[in-house]
Amino acid sequence: TEMKLPGQEESDLSSASENVPTGELDSGPGSGLSPDGPLDTDSRELEVPKDPPLFIQGSEPLGPQLHPCLTFPDSPASSLLDLGEMPPVTLTAPLTRWVLFEEKLEVGADRWSAPHVPTVALPSLQKLRSLLAKGLVLLDCPALSLQELAEQVTRVESLSPELRGKLKALLLQRPQHLIQTPCTSPCWGKRPSLGPRPKSLGWEDPRSPLTFLQKFPAGAEAGAVLAGQLGFLEQPLGVFVRLQDPVVLGPLIEVPLPSRFFCLLLGPPTLGRGYHEMGRAAAILLSDLQFQWRVRRASSLHDLLAALDAFLEEVTVLPPGRWDPTARIPPPKRLPSEHKRLPSQLRLAKGPSLRRRTPAEDRHGRRQHAANPELRRTGRLFGGLVQDVRRKASWYPSDFLDALHPQCFSAVLYIYLATITNAITFGGLLGEATDGAQGVLESFLGTAVTGAAFCLTAGQPLTILSSTGPVLVFERLLDHSLDYLPFRLWVGIWVAIFCLVLVATEASVLVRYFTRFTEEGFCALISLIFIYDAVGKMLTLTRAYPIQRPGSPTYGCLCQYPDPGGNESQRTSTNPKDRDDILSMDLGLVNASLLPPPECAQRGGHPRGPGCHTVPDIAFFSILLFLTSFLFAMALKHVKTSRFFPSVVRKMLGDFSSVLAILLGCGLDAFLGLATPKLMVPREFKPTLPGRGWLVSPFGANPWWLSVAAALPALLLTILIFMDQQITGVILNRAEYRLRKGAGFHLDLFCVAVLMPLTSALGLPWYVSATVISLAHMDSLRRESRACAPGEAPSFLGIREQRLTGLAVFILTGISIFLAPILKFIPVPLLYGIFLYMGVTAISSIQFTKRVQLLLIPAKHQPDLLFLRHVPLSRVHLFTAIQLACLGLLWIIKSTPAAIIFPIMLLGLVGVRKALEWVFSPQELLWLDELMPEKERSIPESGVEPECSFSGSDSEDSELMYQPKAPEINISVN
Amino acid sequence: TEMKLPGQEESDLSSASENVPTGELDSGPGSGLSPDGPLDTDSRELEVPKDPPLFIQGSEPLGPQLHPCLTFPDSPASSLLDLGEMPPVTLTAPLTRWVLFEEKLEVGADRWSAPHVPTVALPSLQKLRSLLAKGLVLLDCPALSLQELAEQVTRVESLSPELRGKLKALLLQRPQHLIQTPCTSPCWGKRPSLGPRPKSLGWEDPRSPLTFLQKFPAGAEAGAVLAGQLGFLEQPLGVFVRLQDPVVLGPLIEVPLPSRFFCLLLGPPTLGRGYHEMGRAAAILLSDLQFQWRVRRASSLHDLLAALDAFLEEVTVLPPGRWDPTARIPPPKRLPSEHKRLPSQLRLAKGPSLRRRTPAEDRHGRRQHAANPELRRTGRLFGGLVQDVRRKASWYPSDFLDALHPQCFSAVLYIYLATITNAITFGGLLGEATDGAQGVLESFLGTAVTGAAFCLTAGQPLTILSSTGPVLVFERLLDHSLDYLPFRLWVGIWVAIFCLVLVATEASVLVRYFTRFTEEGFCALISLIFIYDAVGKMLTLTRAYPIQRPGSPTYGCLCQYPDPGGNESQRTSTNPKDRDDILSMDLGLVNASLLPPPECAQRGGHPRGPGCHTVPDIAFFSILLFLTSFLFAMALKHVKTSRFFPSVVRKMLGDFSSVLAILLGCGLDAFLGLATPKLMVPREFKPTLPGRGWLVSPFGANPWWLSVAAALPALLLTILIFMDQQITGVILNRAEYRLRKGAGFHLDLFCVAVLMPLTSALGLPWYVSATVISLAHMDSLRRESRACAPGEAPSFLGIREQRLTGLAVFILTGISIFLAPILKFIPVPLLYGIFLYMGVTAISSIQFTKRVQLLLIPAKHQPDLLFLRHVPLSRVHLFTAIQLACLGLLWIIKSTPAAIIFPIMLLGLVGVRKALEWVFSPQELLWLDELMPEKERSIPESGVEPECSFSGSDSEDSELMYQPKAPEINISVN
Repeated sequence: TEMKLPGQEESDLSSASENVPTGELDSGPGSGLSPDGPLDTDSRELEVPKDPPLFIQGSEPLGPQLHPCLTFPDSPASSLLDLGEMPPVTLTAPLTRWVLFEEKLEVGADRWSAPHVPTVALPSLQKLRSLLAKGLVLLDCPALSLQELAEQVTRVESLSPELRGKLKALLLQRPQHLIQTPCTSPCWGKRPSLGPRPKSLGWEDPRSPLTFLQKFPAGAEAGAVLAGQLGFLEQPLGVFVRLQDPVVLGPLIEVPLPSRFFCLLLGPPTLGRGYHEMGRAAAILLSDLQFQWRVRRASSLHDLLAALDAFLEEVTVLPPGRWDPTARIPPPKRLPSEHKRLPSQLRLAKGPSLRRRTPAEDRHGRRQHAANPELRRTGRLFGGLVQDVRRKASWYPSDFLDALHPQCFSAVLYIYLATITNAITFGGLLGEATDGAQGVLESFLGTAVTGAAFCLTAGQPLTILSSTGPVLVFERLLDHSLDYLPFRLWVGIWVAIFCLVLVATEASVLVRYFTRFTEEGFCALISLIFIYDAVGKMLTLTRAYPIQRPGSPTYGCLCQYPDPGGNESQRTSTNPKDRDDILSMDLGLVNASLLPPPECAQRGGHPRGPGCHTVPDIAFFSILLFLTSFLFAMALKHVKTSRFFPSVVRKMLGDFSSVLAILLGCGLDAFLGLATPKLMVPREFKPTLPGRGWLVSPFGANPWWLSVAAALPALLLTILIFMDQQITGVILNRAEYRLRKGAGFHLDLFCVAVLMPLTSALGLPWYVSATVISLAHMDSLRRESRACAPGEAPSFLGIREQRLTGLAVFILTGISIFLAPILKFIPVPLLYGIFLYMGVTAISSIQFTKRVQLLLIPAKHQPDLLFLRHVPLSRVHLFTAIQLACLGLLWIIKSTPAAIIFPIMLLGLVGVRKALEWVFSPQELLWLDELMPEKERSIPESGVEPECSFSGSDSEDSELMYQPKAPEINISVN
Repeated sequence: TEMKLPGQEESDLSSASENVPTGELDSGPGSGLSPDGPLDTDSRELEVPKDPPLFIQGSEPLGPQLHPCLTFPDSPASSLLDLGEMPPVTLTAPLTRWVLFEEKLEVGADRWSAPHVPTVALPSLQKLRSLLAKGLVLLDCPALSLQELAEQVTRVESLSPELRGKLKALLLQRPQHLIQTPCTSPCWGKRPSLGPRPKSLGWEDPRSPLTFLQKFPAGAEAGAVLAGQLGFLEQPLGVFVRLQDPVVLGPLIEVPLPSRFFCLLLGPPTLGRGYHEMGRAAAILLSDLQFQWRVRRASSLHDLLAALDAFLEEVTVLPPGRWDPTARIPPPKRLPSEHKRLPSQLRLAKGPSLRRRTPAEDRHGRRQHAANPELRRTGRLFGGLVQDVRRKASWYPSDFLDALHPQCFSAVLYIYLATITNAITFGGLLGEATDGAQGVLESFLGTAVTGAAFCLTAGQPLTILSSTGPVLVFERLLDHSLDYLPFRLWVGIWVAIFCLVLVATEASVLVRYFTRFTEEGFCALISLIFIYDAVGKMLTLTRAYPIQRPGSPTYGCLCQYPDPGGNESQRTSTNPKDRDDILSMDLGLVNASLLPPPECAQRGGHPRGPGCHTVPDIAFFSILLFLTSFLFAMALKHVKTSRFFPSVVRKMLGDFSSVLAILLGCGLDAFLGLATPKLMVPREFKPTLPGRGWLVSPFGANPWWLSVAAALPALLLTILIFMDQQITGVILNRAEYRLRKGAGFHLDLFCVAVLMPLTSALGLPWYVSATVISLAHMDSLRRESRACAPGEAPSFLGIREQRLTGLAVFILTGISIFLAPILKFIPVPLLYGIFLYMGVTAISSIQFTKRVQLLLIPAKHQPDLLFLRHVPLSRVHLFTAIQLACLGLLWIIKSTPAAIIFPIMLLGLVGVRKALEWVFSPQELLWLDELMPEKERSIPESGVEPECSFSGSDSEDSELMYQPKAPEINISVN
């Protein structure tokens, strides 16, 4: 049995094609076909072949003489196999285990190692091959118990009956679990009086193997590998067994799964750890899906060896001088696709549905909506809306039934807290933006009413309606010198009309022109406005509460009492400098002249003097509060990705970071009891603006023609709302979220349009879909696979699409209106801090920011980003510079009196992007941005990338592996 | 020529030992020996074999038809090899390059990829083997030029003369460099009008290949691999050439290094990227040191194949389903030792000096001082001191000559800035600690005088003397109600006496009992005191500048003028509450009554009223300054390890973080011009305490017996100074810093002792060696290898041990005394912030803190720390809990009136550590702490670890690989 390795057959190199592994062609009938899993489905994701998953465990026969540190105190001495002259040996299990990755038992530390990519030396695989080649291979062994199995595997010619008996005894022996700190005893003489203690080698320390079992889906099978050296053997012994029916092998396997495979690799003690490594090699083989598939169908030794050869064909080799073989490689974020491992002929032969996705297509995943039926123009008036309504109507009952899952409860709590934080923050800013016409009360009421209405009727019920940054910024730019609310009502009516026109003309299909360039420009501008405003408002606050420098004439405040008779005896200042600060004093009451202003007023006097209007310490304390809420929210956000605390706590702290930051700030403020500016909340349930009812009169004090003139700002606002609403829609409906119930771009816009005049008439804020909070909503409703192997990231199954969570959130928000009296304890600087946090978070999430940072990073230290592999750095910088210039231009426009036209300028970004096609090649734009629709059609279906990317063609997958496909929140201002 | 792989020979598995690679035993005479580099030296570090380093470059013949995106616009069409019917082909170089790691040319991005561990598919290596086996192997080829080489390599029988000509033409062709964005042109039709531009494919983009050349040491050689498919070939062609004398192959190699090896792997276009991959495999082989060594000595094809087989014996295999073969693995922090790769027989045969170091020994590296001659007791009075002086005297001249290197200039600047920052910070705190007896001036003067004296005489001239935290803390606990400076003089005299006794009795050898447990306990306590004090002082400050809450009666301040005649007409307050704040007023000057206090005093009045003593806004502004300096210093420290900015800038920002933080804070303070408390500095060069001269009188106002009683605190202070001084000494003399000139524990203590009465007599602070600043000093004098390969970390060569940098620093510090008038602009809260920064930095650097954090991290997420692999988590937690309890006890003692005895308690940590031997096994203590001397001796020389660590035996090296051996600063309070 000469060892035969793949590649030997093809000594004529020129005649063999690299892409046809020999093992694939010359293997037996069973393995002539490839795993059907990836072939029978047109899903483009990794599909595990339909064979049950396999859990593999490695054990070893060990004796104290081999490992002096191992003791077996929880076993009576008799359990050690007495082998006459040989030292006693016992079976030790488990030592290693595999599901996808390898875990080693760390004996000293009494726990399983972190899962890691298993590596093995090439000779171990080769020795395993030769051992199996001349060993015993039992396929479809009919053994029904461990006893029968032991009987079968010891039927080897080379073994004497005595050795068979010993071997059988070893196999049937109850395996010993290695105990805690085994080295304490024999090595150091001092035997600690620790008795046998219950084993706790589960997933995490406190858990039992039964918890581990829950990780496996029903039908999972096990494979046992028993490898090691045995003193009494004279010849190496290799046995490979595939059981006809899987059998529970008793205590040999840690978890009570029935075993399908059994591999015995034993030999005389000459190879050192050679057999241990061979056992690991066998376990690595068995844990490979392709090998499993082949070996389950193998009908002979030849098939088994062919499967091993096919495995060897595919292994990656690490050179010895550059990589320490003992280094543990952490599991990659994404496993290589099993589909990719199929021979290319098979992949191509099955036609386009099986064609491997090119990276270019992967990147187009984002823009798959371009081909979606939702975004195909019908050509009829309101055609898109009608289609949307029809599509969504069929899902309507399920939109309520699908919510019956406990996960929805926690989602409601999370989104509710996020929503009221939002309502409070925006409510605090509304007053400033609308010149006091609105406040927290309107914010709560509007959120509750419009949110609930939208949830019940919208096309995409996962969307959460909110006051959004762009609209708020726009509102601040409107002319508040008019009778504002009536004017605003007309703006709302006009917006509704324009939006209806957009719905009628199916304008939403134009979202295909919003590429990443536009989205990021929009996001960056709004984020910068947030940051600028937050800091600016803080500085305004320090002007309202001036800092008292030494020598500034703000000391002193006297209390002036009127004369008993009502005449005030005043003295005019003789110092011309102080003429404005005339001080006078009733002579008889001079002793009370230094009363603090409130006390003075209480006693009937008037506080007079430069110091009376000064409230010291407020300015710096406000800055401290501002920094507190900003830094604390940032820090808590990072807790989510840290190692500390159990994941539930971590998630909670991260999700509720703004709420906690506000609470902390409020506590600090209440503790010091300073007169910081607080959130203005009406004491009763009535509009914030004094003297108005809930309904806004259509004209008020404005001339009639203003109702017509309102059309102009309304047009601008319509552009803004359209962009805001549809960019959110595009992001939510990206392919990676796997929504099943379809989008409703037209219906959503229609709902927003209908709500506009309603909120305007009630004097409530304007609402539009908010990206971040909607994404958070989706995220809280993710369905993920629960049974995942150690080291494997849970796979994403979809979203619980329904209407009930949103509805519950807004009903709760409505009830929270009565919380308003509590809200007046919140200092405004805290909210500015949260505002800054929102701006910073939003701007740091976009690729544009990464590219700006690249400007500061020397080429040598730049991260290995995908686009840097394919686009020259100078071109990347040029693209960034153009974006920066656009942003600068937008900023300048925003700072001029023409600020109000900035929505048009935002729309201008689409034009700039179009013009970029003259500067950059489509190849470059594909990497830095994405392609626009026409261009997309002009590219041959075969994809842009593969032919042209030269050295990149073998590397972009690895990049995708490192960059998780998790949704990238790139518009996070809400 | 049947392909023959290693492992085939040993079909009888049981007879072959895993540790004897076949390739090693059966290879020809040339390779029968192993690389002599690692064998001839007893250095335990990686030693490159004495063969010159090799640079390998891969090129490929490419034609536009093969890669439609490649264009060659900077070459005339004629340079494309016209091959008749075949499409034209051109030689493209370079495409890949290797020194230690692989770099790929990223054609689209026009730059080299980041260096990464090269991985290759196993079949490529096997195909390479079979191609070479039947190919042409020319060893010691006498070619002297590319022309001759081309002549030689085309002399293959299978080639027709016509093909030979074509091939030769191809080889002699000027290779084409791929240009920027090659895909812009042919794929998209629009050809941008970018002409040929100069190539910039050097190390970083702007650099040329000549800069790259500088990375190689003199004598470096190159290897060229030319692999690819050629349309006109019918048979695969494999040629391997070792040139007798290395030849510069002209433009074929990017850098003008002479080539030693040349490898040609060409074939007909049937294998796709097969030849490209084979070329990579060949380059990976050639870049392997062991393979290089063998192939340089190979005398036949058989030797070459044996070297390849030996390589295959050692490769690590990554399973295909668990690892994407295209993933780029970043270079490991530490390369596996080449020495380790030698067969174990050879390693062991050469005796202990060659014996591979066990991990246990590695960990003992820290404690190698235990066996150092410096710490061996001579048994004679002052024996250690005499030895130290003798040892250091022989190095004394070199201590000045070794400083003649430009690196020393930057070291002086860096350490000077660190020293004056230290002097300022401690100077600011000295006033508080000594009740105003000392200040910044004393701090500067003392630092300069003692530092310079120490530098000139000390045993370890790299040590920097400084006021240290422990001494400062102790000084604060002394009784300041006495005439302090005379009392302090006596303490200093007694300390000197005690220290001299310690020197005489060679007490310094006891430092062997200071294990990590003691060091960390010492560090943690002092750091906590720092943190507590910094925060506490800030709160004290807010009490000195109270916050004005609404309603607090601190408003108002009147200016009271005396009567013209001198009689003050006063009115008594009728309000009993305000009786103490009697206000009176000259009627004629009432208009001036609200003058600010300074102006009032200037005009001859007295400010009266509750508001006069209040300075508003200072409290919160101080907190802001405190936070600014703390957070800014922390942030700048992190810049050092970030990706941003060139490394010079990054290092600068990181090193000068405290200076920059102080400057920023001063700027902010100056900008706002508030009356924050500032550093107290005398206006002239005279002691801070008013009314004393530079010499302290021996008795002052104290009774005579206090000079005797001072012995008690002196004893305690001696313990503290001994611990502080010697822990610093131990850390500085750790084996990993590779100091050549030896330590001087006794001499150092002697110098400190002599300086004590001197500084006490002058009323200067007490000085002792400071760990962090001394480590920073060493770090700034590191010698590192400059010629390091891409991806390789520079290797550490040693420290420039000399006395001149320290001396220069202290002379500069002395000159800086005249900076004192500038220092009074520094607000004290900034210094508290720096103090907090020092405390936080110190406490976060110790392993104890990592273990405390482990308490909060769920087992699943815990980092893969070495001790966690070997000690059960519960035992780790128990150890941490005991340390925490000790710390709590120390803290309680510190808070009682018995606080002053805390040095004895610190010493008690050694006792606690001794007692821990009853609770923990030596195995556990070895991992968590280190062993104490006696125990160490009782362990057999073979090491504790290897036999007993079971699953760990193959893994701890990988851990060491991930944990850089860089010095861990674990006592960083200075």
